[in-house]
Amino acid sequence: MAVITLTTDFGTKDWFVGVMKGVLLARAPEARVIDLTHELQPGDIRAGAFALMASYRFFPRGSVHVVVVDPGVGSARRALAVRTRDYFFVGPDNGVLSWALRGEKVQSTRVIENPAYMLSPVSRTFHGRDIFAPAAGCLSAGRPFEKIGPVLKRIERLPWAEPQVTSKQASGEILYIDRFGNAISNLDSASLQPLGGELAVSAGSLKRCPVAEFYQAVPTGKPVAVLGSSGFLEIAVNGGSAAERLGLKPGLQVVVSRVI
Amino acid sequence: MAVITLTTDFGTKDWFVGVMKGVLLARAPEARVIDLTHELQPGDIRAGAFALMASYRFFPRGSVHVVVVDPGVGSARRALAVRTRDYFFVGPDNGVLSWALRGEKVQSTRVIENPAYMLSPVSRTFHGRDIFAPAAGCLSAGRPFEKIGPVLKRIERLPWAEPQVTSKQASGEILYIDRFGNAISNLDSASLQPLGGELAVSAGSLKRCPVAEFYQAVPTGKPVAVLGSSGFLEIAVNGGSAAERLGLKPGLQVVVSRVI
Amino acid sequence: MAVITLTTDFGTKDWFVGVMKGVLLARAPEARVIDLTHELQPGDIRAGAFALMASYRFFPRGSVHVVVVDPGVGSARRALAVRTRDYFFVGPDNGVLSWALRGEKVQSTRVIENPAYMLSPVSRTFHGRDIFAPAAGCLSAGRPFEKIGPVLKRIERLPWAEPQVTSKQASGEILYIDRFGNAISNLDSASLQPLGGELAVSAGSLKRCPVAEFYQAVPTGKPVAVLGSSGFLEIAVNGGSAAERLGLKPGLQVVVSRVI
Repeated sequence: MAVITLTTDFGTKDWFVGVMKGVLLARAPEARVIDLTHELQPGDIRAGAFALMASYRFFPRGSVHVVVVDPGVGSARRALAVRTRDYFFVGPDNGVLSWALRGEKVQSTRVIENPAYMLSPVSRTFHGRDIFAPAAGCLSAGRPFEKIGPVLKRIERLPWAEPQVTSKQASGEILYIDRFGNAISNLDSASLQPLGGELAVSAGSLKRCPVAEFYQAVPTGKPVAVLGSSGFLEIAVNGGSAAERLGLKPGLQVVVSRVI
Repeated sequence: MAVITLTTDFGTKDWFVGVMKGVLLARAPEARVIDLTHELQPGDIRAGAFALMASYRFFPRGSVHVVVVDPGVGSARRALAVRTRDYFFVGPDNGVLSWALRGEKVQSTRVIENPAYMLSPVSRTFHGRDIFAPAAGCLSAGRPFEKIGPVLKRIERLPWAEPQVTSKQASGEILYIDRFGNAISNLDSASLQPLGGELAVSAGSLKRCPVAEFYQAVPTGKPVAVLGSSGFLEIAVNGGSAAERLGLKPGLQVVVSRVI
Repeated sequence: MAVITLTTDFGTKDWFVGVMKGVLLARAPEARVIDLTHELQPGDIRAGAFALMASYRFFPRGSVHVVVVDPGVGSARRALAVRTRDYFFVGPDNGVLSWALRGEKVQSTRVIENPAYMLSPVSRTFHGRDIFAPAAGCLSAGRPFEKIGPVLKRIERLPWAEPQVTSKQASGEILYIDRFGNAISNLDSASLQPLGGELAVSAGSLKRCPVAEFYQAVPTGKPVAVLGSSGFLEIAVNGGSAAERLGLKPGLQVVVSRVI
């Protein structure tokens, strides 16, 4: 089965995503195209990188993951195609693929340059339609990866802040605010392991909240931290938005410590 | 043909719905997955119940309808799978399926408990991905319904307010506000039948508006009630939002009476 | 391959689009249904006409394009089915199809009247579900176009303002504001050809900005005009919304002149 996922900042107000799908299906008529999200803030490369990292592994082997958050469209930035053991990744070389690739065995990275894998002509403002969609369609349909363009040794990478972990506390940062206002951090279960016991979390104006197993473990309106579905510790407010009520934002420090 | 519909309050800002589709397609590669809506207000079980009730019968026999409005995720609430003569329904046992099931011949109701119909491990915060999507994918692909888990005798039901109908007036309540600001009530054509003749509607600040056959039967900006596409009387403003202009909300009483 | 595209003002808050897809798939089980957009402003026929015009040609031959922006639903306006050399178009006879049809070789235009191509009964408020979706499904599945209803000689057309072009300047108007706030005009490359050389653009409060090849050709926050991906000159602000910062709106005049 051929699955292609799409992650963009194009929104759904216009025809941009629909046209990409037309271009995809013309090259990969059997493919199933799945939207991850198109509601990323325009140009928010970190949010795109996080969305892809949280999602890509839930798709069948052989899926092609396309990410277009591309403020540098039309400039000199390269267009990438990456083959890992299980997937293909397609997107601009601006770091948006890099967090997902941390978890993958990369087999080959190439620059999309072969015109046979693109539309003609290529516009300067819509590479989602003219380069990334046709390239992804070709890969999904089984056209050879090696012919897509030259090998690239080194791609752009977003910095990934490793959590600081001691036996007393783990500190990390908020990476993503989801639609419910949950603030997702870079602290995973491995970061919390050394602490053991009962834990409390602080971040910004949040002085202290418990770590629990699910949102409703605290009364409505109260903050709680849970090891969320993406594998990272997230700060929530039961029945409300933690981001709004506590003023949480990406980049803010999160500290987890053992309750004495 | 295998169709699976999705109705959630997950929004489309994040990757949650996309990941559910990845999980669905891994189990039911032939299925066509259709979004009913993902823009329900977080936790609005009544709106989810109404959306499903208004939609499910327009899908081919054998379709699997998945609804995830699930404020109690991770708590003790059960996960349901229901087989009716024509469809499967999958969702939490919090009433969100109950209005649609009023119109269906239920053949069997079971609790989803068989790990072979779920992801492993099951998170405490995203049963859409870990329980409901894999269970729906399995059912769509033809795996046996009887093995999904034990029979359940009694499900949670949302109260359904029956309209009060006399020969002079019918009274009901507003159940749902749609994107156009139309206020949809629980009054159907059977409720209006006994009244006959020319009818007028009042609700909240709306003192009186005519019942007509379509929105443009009144001048632009004027209120009108029509027997809408979901089979229920709805209050509209031609070219505007009845909810905004008239302050209409779910729960508000609606009275239809014959014009003297 | 059978592709059906959907362009509506139904939004995604409710179940309207999902139900149309159920109706489509019941008639055309093999079809791939692609959303162009459902976020058009309610009743904005011009925006729907532009979205379709900018998109339809990126889909495979034989695709059926359905557009439902239909403020006159339930009134006397006709329901159209149009066959061109490469596509089918389905929608209300209110001009919403007319800009796309300017670029197509129309072979036959018919009024959808055959009940075998509709749901029964037909509501007065939701022809997207009851007329346009079943008609499009039938056409996609290969049922005969000639039986859909009687030939129509003349359809409603939206006025299309031809750009005024001299050797010194080209003047046109803004047609569409996209989600990034880019203001897309009716000036295409043919309109700019006679001017040659270095060009500058003015529109509303925008006194003068350069025409460049891509958005980042100017510093962040500065206005720039580019020949956009839909083939028309658009006014953008690098990293911002031109519509917001410059107060640009559909209908506003755009003048391009040679830089002395």
